[in-house]
Amino acid sequence: MNIAVAQSGGPTCAINASLLGVIKEALKVPHIGTIYGSVNGIEGIINDHLVDLKTAIRTNEDMELLRQTPSTVLGSCRYKLPEESENADVYKTITECFDRHDIKAFFYIGGNDSMDTVNKLSKYFKKIKKDIKVIGVPKTIDNDLCETDHTPGFGSAAKYVATSVQEIARDSSVYSIKSVTIVEIMGRHAGWLAASSCALHANGEEAPHLIYLPECEFSIDRFLRDVGEKLEQYKAVIVVVSEGITLGNAAETEVHQADGFGHLALSGIGKQLEKIVAERFSIKVRSIELNVMQRCASHISSRTDINEAEKIGSAAVVAALNGETGKMMAFRRILDMPYTVVIEPIDAEKVANKERFFPKKWINYDQNNVKDEALPYFLPLIQGEQIIKMQNGLPVHYKVGNILD
Amino acid sequence: MNIAVAQSGGPTCAINASLLGVIKEALKVPHIGTIYGSVNGIEGIINDHLVDLKTAIRTNEDMELLRQTPSTVLGSCRYKLPEESENADVYKTITECFDRHDIKAFFYIGGNDSMDTVNKLSKYFKKIKKDIKVIGVPKTIDNDLCETDHTPGFGSAAKYVATSVQEIARDSSVYSIKSVTIVEIMGRHAGWLAASSCALHANGEEAPHLIYLPECEFSIDRFLRDVGEKLEQYKAVIVVVSEGITLGNAAETEVHQADGFGHLALSGIGKQLEKIVAERFSIKVRSIELNVMQRCASHISSRTDINEAEKIGSAAVVAALNGETGKMMAFRRILDMPYTVVIEPIDAEKVANKERFFPKKWINYDQNNVKDEALPYFLPLIQGEQIIKMQNGLPVHYKVGNILD
Repeated sequence: MNIAVAQSGGPTCAINASLLGVIKEALKVPHIGTIYGSVNGIEGIINDHLVDLKTAIRTNEDMELLRQTPSTVLGSCRYKLPEESENADVYKTITECFDRHDIKAFFYIGGNDSMDTVNKLSKYFKKIKKDIKVIGVPKTIDNDLCETDHTPGFGSAAKYVATSVQEIARDSSVYSIKSVTIVEIMGRHAGWLAASSCALHANGEEAPHLIYLPECEFSIDRFLRDVGEKLEQYKAVIVVVSEGITLGNAAETEVHQADGFGHLALSGIGKQLEKIVAERFSIKVRSIELNVMQRCASHISSRTDINEAEKIGSAAVVAALNGETGKMMAFRRILDMPYTVVIEPIDAEKVANKERFFPKKWINYDQNNVKDEALPYFLPLIQGEQIIKMQNGLPVHYKVGNILD
Repeated sequence: MNIAVAQSGGPTCAINASLLGVIKEALKVPHIGTIYGSVNGIEGIINDHLVDLKTAIRTNEDMELLRQTPSTVLGSCRYKLPEESENADVYKTITECFDRHDIKAFFYIGGNDSMDTVNKLSKYFKKIKKDIKVIGVPKTIDNDLCETDHTPGFGSAAKYVATSVQEIARDSSVYSIKSVTIVEIMGRHAGWLAASSCALHANGEEAPHLIYLPECEFSIDRFLRDVGEKLEQYKAVIVVVSEGITLGNAAETEVHQADGFGHLALSGIGKQLEKIVAERFSIKVRSIELNVMQRCASHISSRTDINEAEKIGSAAVVAALNGETGKMMAFRRILDMPYTVVIEPIDAEKVANKERFFPKKWINYDQNNVKDEALPYFLPLIQGEQIIKMQNGLPVHYKVGNILD
């Protein structure tokens, strides 16, 4: 029998580590022949664009480089698998590809959209009585998947965000004049990544002085009052805002483009708030977008995150061999300290197309910061650094082009 | 006798290492009593706001933290010292402060504006026959100071920029659709930092496919033709633009605010080019500003840069003790490989208020990239990483507040 693996959705620092986990576990199994990589997610299955991963990733060095390379070495997609009732042909095409290559298990590394694919495909194979296992491996920097304690990729993104916000706090405090610095953080409709910047508080930092999450209703009046109060207390006020907050009718969030799932790419809230603050207060105001570096800054990835990403990839292979299908592998936390998690399969259906939000219990009364009670949740996820192989003073990457060219 | 040291201009990752160099060298000299830190640059001398650095920085651990902390622990300023003919009082105030505290040497860590202050003050002290030595220590991520091979802070900024652009290149290549990603890089009117992104080419990267520097005239027509050509060759085109390029009459660069020296804060060129590309080509376009992280991302600072920054701070103290004044310490490169530099004093007057530009000989014929001949210049400056002390998964900083509160 052969297996196939694909990566989908937005890149992270950990998604190639999960791919590595799948490969390394599959290599241990004598009756697994070819390990196919599907190029550009499920589209590679549909278009029969597969690569032989045993050929592409040969040496221990290849594996080490893959682990430290951000983004998706197999490419990605935003393809939404239609219902069978809408398009039966695509299900047939997928099945034909699997049959043609004797693929008996398919691993899909992705977010809640990918788990929708896992759910639909596994149900289809059950219905047509075909023994092909479909297992999801979670990934997203947004940490918004249901039924799992956290998602691979999130810890590294959180480490980069907290590290950068701390450095920005140093940078912003040098002049004697008052200032406000607004840092816009990814996370779509969930505030996890913006909230994780509270990790600085564990190191005795006052910054971020204000954190705004999409889980709370945002009011410009309250925001300006908050900023005014902090400006009385601090010379350089650091504000973290999640891209997902909305200004309501008062102002329109600049909207860039919608992807295949109809998601809108959110952007521009930091810049808008910069203008609003500058109009109200005669002080220096700056807004900073950490942009895609949040999901690809593997040079400061969390060792915990990368190790877990590899383990959950391995666990997916074990689960498929145990006969599971239609599942996503999930982390269940046993203890905050010493940090202990177990990996177990949960129904992909419970994750598909759903979002998990930052808990209200960890948001302060004024809805403008995160309580210290959230620290035991966040801190274990950002522990440890990777030892990065460097060349010419720069990290070495496993080149996507090696496979994608 | 006592000495004083101050930091000025925009923050870098290396400016505290230079401060550490001054402190460590001064500690070796028995007849130096107090080491004063002047808070917020020369303004601390004018306002008599000094701190005792032997008290503030006591332990080896303090020193290690200072070395890994970005920005200016003593604060900064953008104060332009007027000519004596315009304002004799400020010269008297400064002299009184030095006399009151028995300060016989003043070290000013900063850029070309600070060297203007070094030049003016040292000339004034010579004129009034006062034996106070004034020595400049260079710093700027822009690398635009004359008479020195490079400036402390530049190597770390270049390492962050190249590392981030490489990660952005991975991130941008995951989807099967064509895309253009525009990365805007600091550097004011000089292209050094944007040009340094060519370091990726040493690692076999094709990106950046296009690099635009303020040293060349920028034409939107040629830019669009270049982008079109690269889109035929590559799926994901990475364009690096220096903030200092101007679109000419065709479009106005968004201008934010002017500092005390009348410099305009440049911004927005990346966003403007994003719009221009999006209008011409029906593809995905994104612009990214690396923003202040370029000057404060000490978690990925260059060990070469930080070590050199400390050494040049030490050398400044040695020079003052040798009777030098009105000088800036400068690097003279002896060899690219093995990389060898010497530190020597040069006239601050030759640096004051001047800019040094990226050499035309290293720009390609089409004026849209950097030749490989520039690599032996850039690569030594980004070599090596700092071992960063971490706590709770984040770098530990020497808190500005310890001194500034």
